[in-house]
Amino acid sequence: MKLKASCFIRVTAFSDCPMIAMLRPRSGVTQWMISERYDLEPWVPVEEFIDSYGNLCQRMIVPRGHMRIGVEVAMEVEDHITVAPHAPQTPISELPSNVLHYLLQSRYCPSDKMLHKALSVVGRTPRGYAQVEKIRSWIHHNLAYRYGVSSASTDALDTLEHGAGVCRDFAHVGIALCRSLQIPARMVVGYMHGLKPMDLHAWFEAFLGGRWYTFDATQDAPRGARIVLAYGHDATDVAFISDYGPRPLQLNEMRVEVTAPDEAQPEAVPAVKTSK
Amino acid sequence: MKLKASCFIRVTAFSDCPMIAMLRPRSGVTQWMISERYDLEPWVPVEEFIDSYGNLCQRMIVPRGHMRIGVEVAMEVEDHITVAPHAPQTPISELPSNVLHYLLQSRYCPSDKMLHKALSVVGRTPRGYAQVEKIRSWIHHNLAYRYGVSSASTDALDTLEHGAGVCRDFAHVGIALCRSLQIPARMVVGYMHGLKPMDLHAWFEAFLGGRWYTFDATQDAPRGARIVLAYGHDATDVAFISDYGPRPLQLNEMRVEVTAPDEAQPEAVPAVKTSK
Amino acid sequence: MKLKASCFIRVTAFSDCPMIAMLRPRSGVTQWMISERYDLEPWVPVEEFIDSYGNLCQRMIVPRGHMRIGVEVAMEVEDHITVAPHAPQTPISELPSNVLHYLLQSRYCPSDKMLHKALSVVGRTPRGYAQVEKIRSWIHHNLAYRYGVSSASTDALDTLEHGAGVCRDFAHVGIALCRSLQIPARMVVGYMHGLKPMDLHAWFEAFLGGRWYTFDATQDAPRGARIVLAYGHDATDVAFISDYGPRPLQLNEMRVEVTAPDEAQPEAVPAVKTSK
Amino acid sequence: MKLKASCFIRVTAFSDCPMIAMLRPRSGVTQWMISERYDLEPWVPVEEFIDSYGNLCQRMIVPRGHMRIGVEVAMEVEDHITVAPHAPQTPISELPSNVLHYLLQSRYCPSDKMLHKALSVVGRTPRGYAQVEKIRSWIHHNLAYRYGVSSASTDALDTLEHGAGVCRDFAHVGIALCRSLQIPARMVVGYMHGLKPMDLHAWFEAFLGGRWYTFDATQDAPRGARIVLAYGHDATDVAFISDYGPRPLQLNEMRVEVTAPDEAQPEAVPAVKTSK
Repeated sequence: MKLKASCFIRVTAFSDCPMIAMLRPRSGVTQWMISERYDLEPWVPVEEFIDSYGNLCQRMIVPRGHMRIGVEVAMEVEDHITVAPHAPQTPISELPSNVLHYLLQSRYCPSDKMLHKALSVVGRTPRGYAQVEKIRSWIHHNLAYRYGVSSASTDALDTLEHGAGVCRDFAHVGIALCRSLQIPARMVVGYMHGLKPMDLHAWFEAFLGGRWYTFDATQDAPRGARIVLAYGHDATDVAFISDYGPRPLQLNEMRVEVTAPDEAQPEAVPAVKTSK
Repeated sequence: MKLKASCFIRVTAFSDCPMIAMLRPRSGVTQWMISERYDLEPWVPVEEFIDSYGNLCQRMIVPRGHMRIGVEVAMEVEDHITVAPHAPQTPISELPSNVLHYLLQSRYCPSDKMLHKALSVVGRTPRGYAQVEKIRSWIHHNLAYRYGVSSASTDALDTLEHGAGVCRDFAHVGIALCRSLQIPARMVVGYMHGLKPMDLHAWFEAFLGGRWYTFDATQDAPRGARIVLAYGHDATDVAFISDYGPRPLQLNEMRVEVTAPDEAQPEAVPAVKTSK
Repeated sequence: MKLKASCFIRVTAFSDCPMIAMLRPRSGVTQWMISERYDLEPWVPVEEFIDSYGNLCQRMIVPRGHMRIGVEVAMEVEDHITVAPHAPQTPISELPSNVLHYLLQSRYCPSDKMLHKALSVVGRTPRGYAQVEKIRSWIHHNLAYRYGVSSASTDALDTLEHGAGVCRDFAHVGIALCRSLQIPARMVVGYMHGLKPMDLHAWFEAFLGGRWYTFDATQDAPRGARIVLAYGHDATDVAFISDYGPRPLQLNEMRVEVTAPDEAQPEAVPAVKTSK
Repeated sequence: MKLKASCFIRVTAFSDCPMIAMLRPRSGVTQWMISERYDLEPWVPVEEFIDSYGNLCQRMIVPRGHMRIGVEVAMEVEDHITVAPHAPQTPISELPSNVLHYLLQSRYCPSDKMLHKALSVVGRTPRGYAQVEKIRSWIHHNLAYRYGVSSASTDALDTLEHGAGVCRDFAHVGIALCRSLQIPARMVVGYMHGLKPMDLHAWFEAFLGGRWYTFDATQDAPRGARIVLAYGHDATDVAFISDYGPRPLQLNEMRVEVTAPDEAQPEAVPAVKTSK
């Protein structure tokens, strides 16, 4: 299906401020960029590089004053994510070398401390996809989706303790529980059609039966219509904007829109589960 | 300056035909992609990968029948290429490791056979940028720009023998002569504003004084307003379309346009020097 | 100078156990591998790959039973580490793209929570190398080197709270404090001549004035005679052995030796500062 | 099986001469480095980097005067190369992205000019492994192994015309004929046990049925006991020594030895077929 997505951002810099944005999706096997705009006002020179996860990163210096960043993209994406209830856990010895590092603990996913929790969540669920779906479903039903509970330093253990969080926190819990069971898992950020309120979104992927599968603990059912902006170990690696100023950027406005121009207007799907 | 460029292609496939296109520029230090379209009709799944030169490559299978490919891009590019008459030759021992391979002979640039010619061209010109400019200028004044002399298998030695060729051939000669003098050189293909007749263009870059400089033997004077599509050792690596069918694709039409929307219309610059 | 180093390891596997070792140094600008042995008994097939940090990683399956791993290496290394008291902090905007990620928080270096501590440690020290040396020296004088205080899940905040740790913990604190001040820092593991008791060692590097410098908070003075085995964000990425069995490997013995064959026997240097 | 191989080289430099050597094998799936020595006399600083083919490259400056380079290695390698008469040609659409470039013509393998010859060689042989074996066998029986016929600028077409060449030339012909049939092929250089006279050797690999297979047109029968030193498109990329001096290095001596310490001494196998 075809999706149109846009993100408009207004920031104020109180002094020249180096910034890295990750706002340009890449064409890949599951998504194809039909068209794109990437506007900066005022115009500043930008260097684009590819990080070790394969993400396109835009480096620039935001000059003192106001700046607007506007990105728009039309992408061909998958209508539905693939669900494979019987996909097995890939034995460690058969994991591709470049997937192995997604087994490791990371800043927000301290999987080295979470095996006990993971075992209690999956219980006697058969190994593989079924375990990850069990984890996803457990998060969906046992954590409340609530703003204001978490901050930039909240990790998966904190979220379990709070019993609540937002999409990023749900993804961290899912990733950390998977890794503690030796299932490679990674963070994904991007756009999803039908979110309400609309915003950039975060979910996770797990590597099972030789490929990556999408999981989203904020949703009641498997849903496609997603555009991936970036992959990483956790939120550390996928910030849509990172600023490195002597003084932080002030984010004045951020507006995200996602539409499916070729489709009848969908009913508004709650972007996130209603909180408990 | 801002450039708009487009390339429309119509092909016929007589059976399903695997194809690789290199029609998506990358944002980098010298060019920034403001907006882009990449249309295929009919729509087919595309995989995009990055080759060892850093080029974006689009893999697809052209289904039996007709296909249209249309790409449009608006880029911020440099008005003028940098000219540095005194840039020195970089000593081999100071070349970055990932530049070294641009010293090697390649299919169309048999530099291992061209040292004698290179020495006769540069004469007593001081080493460095001045030598490359001497080579560029020598090609411009001594080879005729003429269609139909060269084919897909013409290399730099052939072109010297013919005394004529097109942009691709001029670039091959320039690259081969540079390399024989131990100056790293690479092929560039892309768009250039003001060419007449308009078409995709080819030129070369040489590594001098620690960076790459642009040289174009088809032009009377240094000219900017270029959009890079791909880099490579020579034409082997930078084909805008490579087809791998049991039967070759038939190219029915190819139309390239480049405009500078923010500028007064430039006089038509001869895309290439007038032939001798 | 020339160093000889060896590491002998005996493990028991209670079932076939996938393992990744990082026990083969790479030749680079600061160290050159003169000779090497890498023995496995029993012999098993090994695949060697290079991770995203550039480390050589050896993958194998340890069969049920006992295994010995013996590595020996003779390397040419630097006698002294470079000390550059006036090296400035590299502005973010001038950092190479592949260094930027060493600014980010990581599992054991939660720099996002440590700016306050870092500011109190560096006080009015001028920015750059001097700050990192101040951090290194502060750790050396304020944390006790003591075994048994930390575990595999201890992060830099835990270590500050305990007031004690081992080389790995000291490195984590140094790295986290640097990153919170926007100085890229990375973990290093390897061999060091003169440690007592001899063991594998860990220290850190900070990126200043355009290059990496070595810092070791366990030592009274700058000391060279090091062989690097691996680089990473923190201990997550540089384990000399990672096992992924259904049951963990049992480590029966590990013996490290480092000698400098061409030198008069050095006095035994305390491998680590005496604890407070 | 275990192989010991060594290469001793004596050169004279008439002025400081930058040099790149490719004399250090890498451990991989099919070969494991048990032990290694790499001596330089006099000692000079060396930088080791990995090129785009994955080869380890040693950069150094040979100082004016004499230098000896000695490398010794003990490797675990495959006794026999895998033969798979029924392995199919991999359809282009299923080739891994990083294999595609091995379809392209290169300096010494102008496959763009050799389709006609390839078709006449393979005749009605079924597509896939059988075609490559047919090519290999055709070269073996129709080209004479003879020193002095070819030079550093001899390509596959030249060799066909001469009707003779050495291992490098045979490999070039095999590679070029494969590529013209859309079979990816690459150059390999390394050691082979039993060659007489002993020397560094060259052969080729073709990608069939999803993996690389070894082919050696100098041999009567499939033979293993090989150590790979480097891969590339053709001889351009795999020179064991490349010098970049104002004056070329003088090669005074080069001595290669390969033994299989755990085996009864093999009969001397003619390193190469007897010439016609």
